Amino acid sequence: MKEFWSEKAKSLTPYTAGEQPRGKMVKLNTNENAYPPSPAVAEAVRRAAEALRLYPDPDARSLCVAIAEYHGVRPQQVFCANGSDEALALCCAAFFQNGTNGADGWFPGVSIPRRVKTPDVGYSFYPVWAELFDVPLEMVPLKEDYSVDVEKMYGGCGMILANPNAPTGVALSISNIEKIIQRTNGVAVVDEAYASFSRATAVPLIDQYRNLAVVRTLSKSHSLAGLRVGYVVADENLIAALRTVKDSFNSYPLDALAQAGAEAAVRDAGYCRKVTEKILKTRAYTVSELEKLGILTLPSEANFVFARFDGPSAEAVFTALRERGVLVRWFSGRRTRDFLRITIGTREEMDTLLSALKEILCK
Amino acid sequence: MKEFWSEKAKSLTPYTAGEQPRGKMVKLNTNENAYPPSPAVAEAVRRAAEALRLYPDPDARSLCVAIAEYHGVRPQQVFCANGSDEALALCCAAFFQNGTNGADGWFPGVSIPRRVKTPDVGYSFYPVWAELFDVPLEMVPLKEDYSVDVEKMYGGCGMILANPNAPTGVALSISNIEKIIQRTNGVAVVDEAYASFSRATAVPLIDQYRNLAVVRTLSKSHSLAGLRVGYVVADENLIAALRTVKDSFNSYPLDALAQAGAEAAVRDAGYCRKVTEKILKTRAYTVSELEKLGILTLPSEANFVFARFDGPSAEAVFTALRERGVLVRWFSGRRTRDFLRITIGTREEMDTLLSALKEILCK
Repeated sequence: MKEFWSEKAKSLTPYTAGEQPRGKMVKLNTNENAYPPSPAVAEAVRRAAEALRLYPDPDARSLCVAIAEYHGVRPQQVFCANGSDEALALCCAAFFQNGTNGADGWFPGVSIPRRVKTPDVGYSFYPVWAELFDVPLEMVPLKEDYSVDVEKMYGGCGMILANPNAPTGVALSISNIEKIIQRTNGVAVVDEAYASFSRATAVPLIDQYRNLAVVRTLSKSHSLAGLRVGYVVADENLIAALRTVKDSFNSYPLDALAQAGAEAAVRDAGYCRKVTEKILKTRAYTVSELEKLGILTLPSEANFVFARFDGPSAEAVFTALRERGVLVRWFSGRRTRDFLRITIGTREEMDTLLSALKEILCK
Repeated sequence: MKEFWSEKAKSLTPYTAGEQPRGKMVKLNTNENAYPPSPAVAEAVRRAAEALRLYPDPDARSLCVAIAEYHGVRPQQVFCANGSDEALALCCAAFFQNGTNGADGWFPGVSIPRRVKTPDVGYSFYPVWAELFDVPLEMVPLKEDYSVDVEKMYGGCGMILANPNAPTGVALSISNIEKIIQRTNGVAVVDEAYASFSRATAVPLIDQYRNLAVVRTLSKSHSLAGLRVGYVVADENLIAALRTVKDSFNSYPLDALAQAGAEAAVRDAGYCRKVTEKILKTRAYTVSELEKLGILTLPSEANFVFARFDGPSAEAVFTALRERGVLVRWFSGRRTRDFLRITIGTREEMDTLLSALKEILCK
């Protein structure tokens, strides 16, 4: 096997996405939004479907304008991609590929590849992109309480972290994020996939820090995991780098339906706010009910909780939940294997989860 | 400018896509299909829009099955991507990245990067991907008649060509394609973006040649440029390499609407056949009417013609057509600058083009 594969392809260990079962499961494993998207989406998609014969706008300009208005930035500060995964992959290529060569290297005239810093527990796709784009990654251990060790994140030639972090759900304050940005020599990528369930966003800092790229997705905040739309908000110079790499890879990453549907969702901010409030309420309810069962969670600012299991192992509980038709996610890493990541679904779904847990733990 | 850009990003010269004007133009510049897609597409999209909250199938399995049935191959021999551009980019990464190191190199123990062969006139994205993935590309000159020089394509460590070729529209016979595949040491990528307007396809050869990857798109054949769906048909071992690279870049490149719409289109083969026949008729009509104007075209097996201009320059005619609301495409390269590439639109659109040309040439 692997005959004809490039050396690069042979070297890769791909990311493993969460299961997408087709059957009837209570699906709390991939952090989808518990509610459907704005009704405006289906209508926009229907209209866009009339012109599928034609190529879409390669730069999704109309969508960029809607996103810019949503965040109060300029359209030239927005770059749209095929999901935030593609946005993050392109950030790695545009800002970190092959490392940043140290102009201030130890040996004058000799390029020293320096390190891009990332917490050792984070989105598990980061090391995969690092491998793909030859990015020298330095894994910075989280503190004992699973928060990011701010000072240890200083001094990289680049930085990438999720805020709130995944799979922990723990968030850094924006003032701490700012300190890291200030002390990063290259680009600081802040992955805000879950920020709409948090109190804070680094987006307003982009005018101040030319080395800041904030990555967002509509998958969770706008209930559009099925539509694959993510984006980057950053200084125009960074956006230009992303466009250059994108136009060297795939000119038209967003189809006409995704562009139209995403724009309709972004423009219906009121709907999004209402849905988010419901999820935050259910999160508070879930955390307190889990506590009654003796299950502690890390302080979450995302649409999931990271719950610790001390009696039966997290892996055993994962399996027992699965047998009862409830799907959550378990990560086998040393610092994550005692936890389950549980998406906040509807109140009814969480009650199903809680009853199942009661059964499992009281056996 | 370019502060914070990776060395790779700084080195890239991106692909320039054809203009996508929003106004009222007769649009014959990007080889879109002249007719809308099957009516089944809109209905499938409408149904799929009901579940946008959930992630799509990361491997588009249902669509792979439909494509496999369409071509009479096995689903495991199909890989779906976000347009054939993404499919081709991933082929370059999976099969050619950093060159194939010669096991049979001249110096035992020393890796010799060898060359991937491609015609010097071809899809202008190939050299861009070569730059992005460090593929050593050898540009093989077309013959005087603008056909591919078959024997000069032999002996590469990889091979990529469009058949029919772009922007010429000229096709190689499958027996000539087969000769090149047999004499290519690594993977032979045959880009069949326009093959549905031709007599022949290399797809039936995939069981015989483990080093053959055939790339197709629904953009032209199925009138779905707006939906961004392309695919690769190849031996399972090559498909596995593509999946590995894809899952190291972006797990979910095809949104739920694109998967559903594409499947509906592929399953409506009768509609596609009827549309293709109409386009072939209009192509014959256009070629003969151009001839009456003294304009010669290369023998086309695509949904466009490559027309030579000897009086006023092709560039001048391009501009004059544009002023008359007719958009075609002109490429500035040495061997292409005497030609215009003209998409075959509807009969009415071609009549508008022909009248405009008459006006321009008789002035």
